[in-house]
Amino acid sequence: MEFYPVAIEKLMEEFAKLPGIGNKTAQRLTLYVLNLPKDEVDEFASALVRARGTIKYCSVCGNFTDKDPCAICSNPNRDKSTICVVEEPKDVIAIEKVREYNGTYHVLHGTISPMAGRGPDDIKLRELVSRINGNVKEVIVATNPNVEGEATAMYISKILKPLGTKVTRIAHGIPVGGDLEYADEVTLSKALEGRKEI
Amino acid sequence: MEFYPVAIEKLMEEFAKLPGIGNKTAQRLTLYVLNLPKDEVDEFASALVRARGTIKYCSVCGNFTDKDPCAICSNPNRDKSTICVVEEPKDVIAIEKVREYNGTYHVLHGTISPMAGRGPDDIKLRELVSRINGNVKEVIVATNPNVEGEATAMYISKILKPLGTKVTRIAHGIPVGGDLEYADEVTLSKALEGRKEI
Repeated sequence: MEFYPVAIEKLMEEFAKLPGIGNKTAQRLTLYVLNLPKDEVDEFASALVRARGTIKYCSVCGNFTDKDPCAICSNPNRDKSTICVVEEPKDVIAIEKVREYNGTYHVLHGTISPMAGRGPDDIKLRELVSRINGNVKEVIVATNPNVEGEATAMYISKILKPLGTKVTRIAHGIPVGGDLEYADEVTLSKALEGRKEI
Repeated sequence: MEFYPVAIEKLMEEFAKLPGIGNKTAQRLTLYVLNLPKDEVDEFASALVRARGTIKYCSVCGNFTDKDPCAICSNPNRDKSTICVVEEPKDVIAIEKVREYNGTYHVLHGTISPMAGRGPDDIKLRELVSRINGNVKEVIVATNPNVEGEATAMYISKILKPLGTKVTRIAHGIPVGGDLEYADEVTLSKALEGRKEI
């Protein structure tokens, strides 16, 4: 037995395919869309198609871009001697929002994860290695501080050091505004290990 | 400063307009969509346009439908002498899923809410009154058991009773599988009030 007209069921299914959207939320979003003015729905639909259609990856750093090379790689004011290695395009945004980093990026599009069957060839590591030359002074590895991110960082360090590049890792420690009491043991130990004179 | 290409920013904005979707979730959904195969994105977009385009309200009960009158109103096996009044189309689905109710519906598309400036003329009350005739034996008011739903139920009862129609309200009480300890006082009082001999 069908409860909704076919076109509505179909839209619910589409919404439910999105990550973190269950059946109930898909229903709520669908009913919301049905009550929107028609031109707003058309705008949403065309934004979907256009975003997916126009987007490509920067041939240098692998970040999302609409022109190649991307705005950061083609900016003469950015310091090309420093490359910050991140997992995903959203990590680039996170660092850009701080407005303190003036180097370039390299987006791996994933991590090495033997458990999930992802090896070094499944992420953009070869592209990183090919960017290393005499002008690159430092590679900052800013993968996430979890098992896979750490393993990837170790692997990158092992590969790049023989090429004579300085490889650094972002600091681990207590987040600003965080609470010692609620910090896990590993974070606390990293925070002690990374202490600095003040 | 722009962090993302324009087409991506635009799609994030569109996602963020949906109810319950904040900026972070909009970003996550957008990045997910960018990684989808192109034809799946096209399918999603056309589902949006098609759902909004084909959908209309049943001229009898006000429920969503793709043909008029809707499947329930035009079904000769449904009991036309009972009308169940609900707030939204999703409430029709909720009751239909129980598979016990065989009457028809009337969707108000809202509630009376003086606080929000919604009066009787802002919901489909006139349409309900115009459906009342000698053949309608009972109107079951199944608006939500909150202040606005109760006020709407009272109003409907006040209007329909002079027309000689029996107006009933769905029962309030402890939900099946619920816990007396965690029931609020009003619910508990309603549950006692509505007790039945067993």
